[in-house]
Amino acid sequence: MNAPADPAHLVPEVRQRPVPQALLDALHERFGGAQLSTVQAVREQHGRDESPFAVPPPAAVVFAESTPDVVDAVRLAAQYAVPVIPYGAGSSIEGQLLAVQGGISIDMGRMNKIVSLAADDLMVTVQPGMTRKQLNEEIKHSGLFFPIDPGADASIGGMAATRASGTNAVRYGTMRDNVLALEVVTASGETIRTGTRARKSSAGYDLTRLFVGSEGTLGVTTEVTLRLYPLPEAVSAAVCSFPDIGAAVRTVIETIQLGVPIARVELLDASTVRMVNAHSHLGLREEPMLLMEFHGTPAGVQEQARAVQDIAAEHGVNVKEGAFAWATTPEERTRLWAARHNAYFAGVQSRPGCRAVTTDVCVPISALAEAVLAAVEEANAAGLPYFLVGHVGDGNFHMGYLIDPDSGQERATAETLNHRLVAHALRLGGTCTGEHGIGLHKMGFLVEEAGAGAVAVMRTIKRALDPLNIMNPGKIFAL
Amino acid sequence: MNAPADPAHLVPEVRQRPVPQALLDALHERFGGAQLSTVQAVREQHGRDESPFAVPPPAAVVFAESTPDVVDAVRLAAQYAVPVIPYGAGSSIEGQLLAVQGGISIDMGRMNKIVSLAADDLMVTVQPGMTRKQLNEEIKHSGLFFPIDPGADASIGGMAATRASGTNAVRYGTMRDNVLALEVVTASGETIRTGTRARKSSAGYDLTRLFVGSEGTLGVTTEVTLRLYPLPEAVSAAVCSFPDIGAAVRTVIETIQLGVPIARVELLDASTVRMVNAHSHLGLREEPMLLMEFHGTPAGVQEQARAVQDIAAEHGVNVKEGAFAWATTPEERTRLWAARHNAYFAGVQSRPGCRAVTTDVCVPISALAEAVLAAVEEANAAGLPYFLVGHVGDGNFHMGYLIDPDSGQERATAETLNHRLVAHALRLGGTCTGEHGIGLHKMGFLVEEAGAGAVAVMRTIKRALDPLNIMNPGKIFAL
Repeated sequence: MNAPADPAHLVPEVRQRPVPQALLDALHERFGGAQLSTVQAVREQHGRDESPFAVPPPAAVVFAESTPDVVDAVRLAAQYAVPVIPYGAGSSIEGQLLAVQGGISIDMGRMNKIVSLAADDLMVTVQPGMTRKQLNEEIKHSGLFFPIDPGADASIGGMAATRASGTNAVRYGTMRDNVLALEVVTASGETIRTGTRARKSSAGYDLTRLFVGSEGTLGVTTEVTLRLYPLPEAVSAAVCSFPDIGAAVRTVIETIQLGVPIARVELLDASTVRMVNAHSHLGLREEPMLLMEFHGTPAGVQEQARAVQDIAAEHGVNVKEGAFAWATTPEERTRLWAARHNAYFAGVQSRPGCRAVTTDVCVPISALAEAVLAAVEEANAAGLPYFLVGHVGDGNFHMGYLIDPDSGQERATAETLNHRLVAHALRLGGTCTGEHGIGLHKMGFLVEEAGAGAVAVMRTIKRALDPLNIMNPGKIFAL
Repeated sequence: MNAPADPAHLVPEVRQRPVPQALLDALHERFGGAQLSTVQAVREQHGRDESPFAVPPPAAVVFAESTPDVVDAVRLAAQYAVPVIPYGAGSSIEGQLLAVQGGISIDMGRMNKIVSLAADDLMVTVQPGMTRKQLNEEIKHSGLFFPIDPGADASIGGMAATRASGTNAVRYGTMRDNVLALEVVTASGETIRTGTRARKSSAGYDLTRLFVGSEGTLGVTTEVTLRLYPLPEAVSAAVCSFPDIGAAVRTVIETIQLGVPIARVELLDASTVRMVNAHSHLGLREEPMLLMEFHGTPAGVQEQARAVQDIAAEHGVNVKEGAFAWATTPEERTRLWAARHNAYFAGVQSRPGCRAVTTDVCVPISALAEAVLAAVEEANAAGLPYFLVGHVGDGNFHMGYLIDPDSGQERATAETLNHRLVAHALRLGGTCTGEHGIGLHKMGFLVEEAGAGAVAVMRTIKRALDPLNIMNPGKIFAL
């Protein structure tokens, strides 16, 4: 990982709290060598994620194997007022995992089992260390699947913590919509359950939704109950090339407004298609492109696709000349989606030695064309290479600025572009983060977006539920 | 309204706090005669809802016309530590509106305008006093609709407060899924916004979902941003009669498990069909019945209906002998749904002078047949007449025990049946309330369902955000 030497201007609160030897001794006594590590390499691995920030690692890593393990680790940490940072797959990208105030990491990776599969109720309860790919593999026999797909093979607990989404959210929603219940160990070491196995409830405060997206700052998730969906009878994918980005985005807007239940609709701009072609050896037309997927009955899928084709034709797509192409076989479909998921790596590969600074705004769909076009124009004006991919059915898109990690100027330019992009998104009624979370990187943006009053409410909740400020402190907002 | 004389065993905390004359004077000075009333009849109207509890009315009613009106009313109330109870349409049924600790009512009914309609983004922002029927009337021209339909013409603010749902939830979700953002006046009189106009966000704690379902205990909602949907191209409704309740419920379970996107699927048992026939002069077969609605393209609607017909046939429905009947015209459809919505009145009318005690459990769909059959058996064994209707696609159903309001024994029997029903639902992994909320009536059930630890977390949040306990105190949980 290429971490810049000076992240100070990005990380507002790096203040290591002491981790007393007495706590390390108590943890060792409770967990022994098989479940506790203070080895430098292990600590460093748990002290970083996909973000660029360089922060000293946690003092120790506990490998939890059960809820009682988590309870005991949290209680010991609370006794010494030492921070606790839950660790899933390490794929967060806004610094969510970093030990900015020191403390201990709790690795949830060994808690990766299915607790119970209720196929008849279309739900499953899993331990938080299970990854989404592992989950789909293990439930394949049931004819059900879990649709949320953030690209990375993230852990379910981490996905809940950042309120993740991804390519399927336009049809199936985000983790907000698909986490039905949680088991959580609170800051005082109590184990609570939020939610039941009923599909809906009006019973009291919606603690499930409060914990989803709280980035580990309110407790450690130890079980997650998820909504599942029947595997669609028919799936078809298509790529459609457009004369310009505006036409592609307007096609998406009209598709959504018409109520077509499209399952995935991803935008790549021409330069990103070029990168993907080079990386994945595809022969896609190097024009702005929508990559689409339709789920349903065989007739329903055809009907949806026809509706989108008609809209695209109205936006200058010459369907007859091959601008609209089907991926008919499962292999072709897999290859296309793998290429989309590899757009990040394709981008990074296009500029040897570079690092990508990724943005994550989400805007009302009516403002999507304006936001995307402005972002492209600004990046071009700044002369910084970039890739552009978007979950455009939700109004969410990512610019990946490809910077030389040793160039302070390029880092600064990328940050400036991100600031302008976020400011523009907020003016358009959007959010600074569609799916990556606030972490360390967007704390300033959160105040701009939500306002000081709403952030004060968040702080009040945090202080009340975690008076010692031990649960992943220093994230989302400063206290 | 027939209120029993002795609700004490149902209402755990009736403790009227004093409302000082100085507060009433200050309110009068701020709001004048046009916006403030202390008239007995007005206070009494605002001191009751559809619940059976008799509680003294609030000391005064403020008719808010703007957010600043709400801010000033809350600030004045806070100054004197006097409770504030938001009032929408008065259609809540668990005692949510009652002034169990005295205080002032804020009537939101005059705040009933559309703030902004963003048709291109499929969303609308409304003031909380607007009712759902009024909303759908006012946006009809846009080709969009708001699907949540709790039966009563409730206010949008009230529906958000109780996390309401209704007949369309199986397809379109509940208020949890369809409230995108709120403007809220907090207990300290600050105005905050939760959420943006983006369809999704990972920016900080999900305050929107925290306020949705909080029954006025955390603040007064002054604006609600809702998700809208394109009016379906085709709509068709059907009634299907079954040999027994079990067959009807199993048909629903398989329909959901197959992923058929049915828009509405309501169960009425044979005796309820009889009541509805008598009340609405319909000639429905007096057998357990599913009332269904399909939304989509013309072809899609046909395909869905065919799938359900096939499943029903496997459960003993003789489609050829008229057990499956279409409502082909919009008028017929309207008549059927009006009959369904009038099931409550049809039930009450079936026993002159009676009052209905309504239950609201929601269970995992796999357990629905067991829960429904046990509820029917218990009611029959107790010899209490009842009606039974259910949003069975969600696992949610209502028993309406038709009691003589002057009979303490029948009241007690109904309460006992409700307790057994809830206990059974909880054993099955369900919830005590699918859509009505906790209010006063289900505070005990909430502790049983969520556990003392989770309720303690709710209390901690309440105390932190409303340290004077002035926001609709005494509801959801005791402090």
